[in-house]
Amino acid sequence: MAVEIERKFLVVSDAWRAQAGEGVRYRQGYLTRVHGDCAARASVRVRIEGDQARLNIKSARLGIRRQEYEYAIPLDEAEEMLATLVLGALVEKTRYRVPVGKHVWEIDVFEGDNAGLVVAEIELAAEDEAFERPAWLGEEVSDDPRYYNVCLAEHPYRDW
Amino acid sequence: MAVEIERKFLVVSDAWRAQAGEGVRYRQGYLTRVHGDCAARASVRVRIEGDQARLNIKSARLGIRRQEYEYAIPLDEAEEMLATLVLGALVEKTRYRVPVGKHVWEIDVFEGDNAGLVVAEIELAAEDEAFERPAWLGEEVSDDPRYYNVCLAEHPYRDW
Repeated sequence: MAVEIERKFLVVSDAWRAQAGEGVRYRQGYLTRVHGDCAARASVRVRIEGDQARLNIKSARLGIRRQEYEYAIPLDEAEEMLATLVLGALVEKTRYRVPVGKHVWEIDVFEGDNAGLVVAEIELAAEDEAFERPAWLGEEVSDDPRYYNVCLAEHPYRDW
Repeated sequence: MAVEIERKFLVVSDAWRAQAGEGVRYRQGYLTRVHGDCAARASVRVRIEGDQARLNIKSARLGIRRQEYEYAIPLDEAEEMLATLVLGALVEKTRYRVPVGKHVWEIDVFEGDNAGLVVAEIELAAEDEAFERPAWLGEEVSDDPRYYNVCLAEHPYRDW
């Protein structure tokens, strides 16, 4: 199983929009809690991305090898689950892809309970891989768990 | 969505075995807790039935209309999830089908942490539908939540 190396940053201006493709709307929610005394051993996420729906199961255990399973499911069933079965808030965002040098940034513009939050992610092949830092890039938050999507469901940005 | 009407009984002898077909082995576990302060709004179950694996999501809310979603998943992924991600005990049993009159009983012979427990279930078209009561049939436990499979994972028979 491959290891995903992602770095996450805040975004300090809208200058990235000039290079952005069309955004894709994401709505997702979690059937499990992964924090505190009630922590499950895996998160179960329902996500609607554009008109595709998927169920995602990811081991809560951090470490080198994090198990992840993903299954396509019918859109109407995902809509029902998001409407009735999730814990915490829905995480709603539009994701834009922005090419910069030889990488593509994914910029998530959050809505709903997380409105006001904009984060940029880059996937790297190695932890020390160099990448271009555009002018709109702000502080790095890779190690701040508050920015994990599952945390944004349990403790949304507007309550920070 | 159809309403499932099932009645569940203890089994007082092995006499049913003469009429039983070949058993199918079930192993299942839950990624969620559904009781107490940690209750999720839905149970997420991984089940291996013979050589078929399925993920099942069921609303925890009781009532006339209980939502249920089921998806086939790869066997090896189900094995991994059962080995590493479930909460509580695995529920392991062999299910036998036993025709009696115009109904078919499903008899679950539990193993592992629930060894010693044998229950018989019958599915009816209406709550007051009549059915034949074979000599091996014991006390009805339809309304006793301890016998729910999800409860047998959280609080197995050997700890009763």
